[in-house]
Amino acid sequence: MTEAATVRRSRITPEREAELYGAVLDLLREVGYDALTMDAVAARTRTSKATLYRLWGGKAELVVRAMRHHKPLRLADLNTGSLRGDLHALASRHDDCQMEQDSALIRGLAMAAHGNPDLLKALREYLVEPEREELRSVLRRAVDRGEIRADNPAAEYVMHMMIGAFAARTIIDELPPTQAFLTSYIDAVVLPALGA
Amino acid sequence: MTEAATVRRSRITPEREAELYGAVLDLLREVGYDALTMDAVAARTRTSKATLYRLWGGKAELVVRAMRHHKPLRLADLNTGSLRGDLHALASRHDDCQMEQDSALIRGLAMAAHGNPDLLKALREYLVEPEREELRSVLRRAVDRGEIRADNPAAEYVMHMMIGAFAARTIIDELPPTQAFLTSYIDAVVLPALGA
Repeated sequence: MTEAATVRRSRITPEREAELYGAVLDLLREVGYDALTMDAVAARTRTSKATLYRLWGGKAELVVRAMRHHKPLRLADLNTGSLRGDLHALASRHDDCQMEQDSALIRGLAMAAHGNPDLLKALREYLVEPEREELRSVLRRAVDRGEIRADNPAAEYVMHMMIGAFAARTIIDELPPTQAFLTSYIDAVVLPALGA
Repeated sequence: MTEAATVRRSRITPEREAELYGAVLDLLREVGYDALTMDAVAARTRTSKATLYRLWGGKAELVVRAMRHHKPLRLADLNTGSLRGDLHALASRHDDCQMEQDSALIRGLAMAAHGNPDLLKALREYLVEPEREELRSVLRRAVDRGEIRADNPAAEYVMHMMIGAFAARTIIDELPPTQAFLTSYIDAVVLPALGA
């Protein structure tokens, strides 16, 4: 979060912020990104549009920060002592039902982001980059423990591998991504690619 | 192609079929799947709508078969003598400009397929399954040559890995997928995951 954003957001309580993000995600599931309007968010949350714009700047940042808020666990907080443990923990952050809902939301946002530079920028700033930084911490710890080599060429592609599993599961297998699928994919693909 | 489809399609010349598919892809690039109408295809190609429906059944099959027709090379036709050679050949089927256009089209279709069972079925039947079958041939040859083990758990995930690289490249790296990126990904991720 930028310093300016912290200052702006400090004017509402954390409880109110959480409530507002929940309403935004509900609306997002109901109508999708393109059809979601700040008017609808204002009406649903009984907030003025002026307040929404003052606190979040615009729809892209509001929606993406709602997604980010909803993630229950920062990877870096979770240090299981092994690379396999950390990656399995990543795959188990949500139960299967939440994961199916989230993958639909993220798919929708990724789609909408093509042709929408504001949304692409917000996605990268608030979802992709923090996730990537957390994965880097996981890999750094694995290097420090001697589990993988520091110059492993697969290290920079871990996020591509994981996103691929999420994105391709539905269309290739006609199945939602589940914890069981992701842990199997981590064991079969991610760890061997990293030479772990 | 089903037998019925072969019979149906035999009533137009291959040249006319190719021309028609080209027009469908042009329209798809211009307006996207959801906004593309059979009326527009009929007008652009000077074909009656009755003929289009008789020959292709509907929009989903017409569009996906146009995408399929456009692929210049069947992987199974290409036997370089090594797994690495075959996978690099897959990544080099299109030049970078074509690949960027295609990835935009496929992304658009994959998006539209969520919530459109006809399109999802056509995508699976005419694009995913043939590609998967061709990848299976590549892997079988690698097993026969002793390059990888037959029971390799990563083998069933090669398509997930590759689609992930395509799908995630834009949003993670803000770069289009290129031949250089894909061959680097194959060397860093796919081959090590397969133990090759």
